[in-house]
Amino acid sequence: MRIRFYNGLVLTGSPAQPERAELWVKDDRIEYVGAPREDAGAFDREIDLAGDLVMPGFKNAHTHSAMTFLRSYADDLPLLDWLNKQVFPMEAKLTADDVYHLAKLAILEYLAAGITANFDMYMFTEANAAASRDMGFRTVLCGCIHDFYNTPDGLRKMYEDYNKGGLVSCILGFHAEYTCSESLLREISAIAHEYKAPVFAHNSESASEVAGCIERHGTTPTAYLDSLGLFDYGGGGYHCIHLSDEDKAIFRDRGLWAVSCPGSNTKLASGIAPLTQLHDMGVHLALGTDGPASNNCLDMFREMFLATGLQKLANQDASAMAAETVFEMATRGGALAMGLADCDTLAPGKKADLTVLDMRRPNMQPVNAVVKNIVYSGSTSNIRLTMIDGRILYENGSFFVGESPDAIYEKANAIINRMRG
Amino acid sequence: MRIRFYNGLVLTGSPAQPERAELWVKDDRIEYVGAPREDAGAFDREIDLAGDLVMPGFKNAHTHSAMTFLRSYADDLPLLDWLNKQVFPMEAKLTADDVYHLAKLAILEYLAAGITANFDMYMFTEANAAASRDMGFRTVLCGCIHDFYNTPDGLRKMYEDYNKGGLVSCILGFHAEYTCSESLLREISAIAHEYKAPVFAHNSESASEVAGCIERHGTTPTAYLDSLGLFDYGGGGYHCIHLSDEDKAIFRDRGLWAVSCPGSNTKLASGIAPLTQLHDMGVHLALGTDGPASNNCLDMFREMFLATGLQKLANQDASAMAAETVFEMATRGGALAMGLADCDTLAPGKKADLTVLDMRRPNMQPVNAVVKNIVYSGSTSNIRLTMIDGRILYENGSFFVGESPDAIYEKANAIINRMRG
Repeated sequence: MRIRFYNGLVLTGSPAQPERAELWVKDDRIEYVGAPREDAGAFDREIDLAGDLVMPGFKNAHTHSAMTFLRSYADDLPLLDWLNKQVFPMEAKLTADDVYHLAKLAILEYLAAGITANFDMYMFTEANAAASRDMGFRTVLCGCIHDFYNTPDGLRKMYEDYNKGGLVSCILGFHAEYTCSESLLREISAIAHEYKAPVFAHNSESASEVAGCIERHGTTPTAYLDSLGLFDYGGGGYHCIHLSDEDKAIFRDRGLWAVSCPGSNTKLASGIAPLTQLHDMGVHLALGTDGPASNNCLDMFREMFLATGLQKLANQDASAMAAETVFEMATRGGALAMGLADCDTLAPGKKADLTVLDMRRPNMQPVNAVVKNIVYSGSTSNIRLTMIDGRILYENGSFFVGESPDAIYEKANAIINRMRG
Repeated sequence: MRIRFYNGLVLTGSPAQPERAELWVKDDRIEYVGAPREDAGAFDREIDLAGDLVMPGFKNAHTHSAMTFLRSYADDLPLLDWLNKQVFPMEAKLTADDVYHLAKLAILEYLAAGITANFDMYMFTEANAAASRDMGFRTVLCGCIHDFYNTPDGLRKMYEDYNKGGLVSCILGFHAEYTCSESLLREISAIAHEYKAPVFAHNSESASEVAGCIERHGTTPTAYLDSLGLFDYGGGGYHCIHLSDEDKAIFRDRGLWAVSCPGSNTKLASGIAPLTQLHDMGVHLALGTDGPASNNCLDMFREMFLATGLQKLANQDASAMAAETVFEMATRGGALAMGLADCDTLAPGKKADLTVLDMRRPNMQPVNAVVKNIVYSGSTSNIRLTMIDGRILYENGSFFVGESPDAIYEKANAIINRMRG
């Protein structure tokens, strides 16, 4: 299967400036990016971009996809009421089948938002993986384990089972310091050493979490986890808001990824991550939406605007965190954090994970600076097409995922209605 | 001309909860909202909502539409460099004809974002007004005067000329305290008393503006302007970030509107307006995008998310500023601030200024709470139709405004390219 995109712009992601070029896809990979060529040969489909722009798909580097059922279920509540009285009791009612259908709803939203891969941490791993495989979506499962869920052997099995190739892969991980005993964390560290593999977890999302860790262990979550050898082969943290200077140095020295979720951090009043400082120190940065119960949407345009905007506010400096930096976080950064080195930029041999932006919408005009237009003005209304692994899964408002959106919506509504009783 | 919307939801805006209903439009006004009726009679067009939602159009209560030419022209710069080295020199090159075409570009963006009216302050008033009239858009011009632009007689003429009915109206206003001499402000106050009319201006957007006013006049902009009698017949301020307790009390006691522009305030690092406190005090609130050079997009979904999100962050309280409050700011609040009492909600006799939201997009599912879905998850990708004064100007991605979007884009690009020289 060969597909040609022509008569438009290509933003390869390296460098982050668009050029007039065409892009050819052969099966699951990019075959060519460059000027039109006489020897192009035959294509199965030729897509006239008509001035539109092909770019790498967004990588949603932290989410809990199946939490779609709780979108708008309990907003505008104090954090602990929301979590303890609303989220946890409803999650206790989830079945594997629920997670399968609820993750599918999230995948529809990813596709319509130009997102081509997610880094997902949730229960019922296989249901989550099946939803991605069945729809053709790329998912990196983050090992999900804590004192009341999964076992070290379960984590080891998950890591082995989901790293055999295909659309779904797995990176080691655990929920967070505050939900894992030291003995469990030591076992996870042993697994990381066994596989010489990176480890991710929620880290320093709230001030109280950090204070609790200091009370329990005499030091911050980052320093504590690092002292247990959990980051000896890299990895990173989700949120990374309340970091000490020592924590930041650990992130830099270990080459850890700080995955920021500014939408969730804003809505849940968690705080503003020190992205400017981390970036200046050379810490690797990526962006995620967090789950749809927290955010509430799965939209990397929102995350990009907030990633730069909140830095401008927090630093009282309109020049903080340039658009190009957050664009890189949302695309290449996420891919590398997630171990998707083949999905980071658009170049021959890379996976064909891409999205096409409609540049002929008023929010993209005039064309003074394309990346700034994307970061400051862009929205999901600009997503014309989303391709993963060489397959077009979304185009001009329609989904090509083997099931109708209405059927998926119906199931999601039935699930939340059943839970409400 | 009679149009029927049926088989969906209507969110009248009062109350702010949707109900299953149909809505009929006759000419420029809403004829009926309620259950289906046998005696409906004949319609010129019947629109099957298929579960979608009709709601009042968003009111963009502060903007400078024609600044579209500077979108993404000079981002990520320190504020004063941006203003003095980039914005002002380019604005000096504008002609009336430029403003006409550039405002048209903004209007396309408004329509695609479900915005049905704007409160616009800019130079070349008649060009601005003509763009709205020619496209069928509703604009409230805010009197634009300062020491180097317009005269009191010009302001008086503008107020008279643009309050003779039709899509364009005018409210008295001036640029800001720091650009107007006291003698000019006294003349504007005299005009306000002459017409017994409200007055709007930029107010307390930056800390340095407030400090400068205190140095010049010994008091804050709000207290100073009030002491000159400018608010004796109401009015309000744009931005309203750096307000003292006395300023807030003046807003409350005078019934002034605080028009917040959180997108611009974020991107330009101006600060976070004290909306929670103002709301608790009973101050009238509305929302605006500010101009597209500042924000950079004209999207009330972004403004709504930021209006609540930044309050949650600033107050460290996830329950701050409920979704329903910001929804009201973005619709009814704006209408009342702008003197559009006929455009505030959807009820018989009101103007048919409305938008239809596509509820069968994944970001709107499941349907746990419609208003929270709109505020926390909604985006311009949900805008299916926009109607102003009973005329459908935007539907399913297409514009019905007498000129093609491509022609408008071409002119906007030609203007900025000419200026760049």
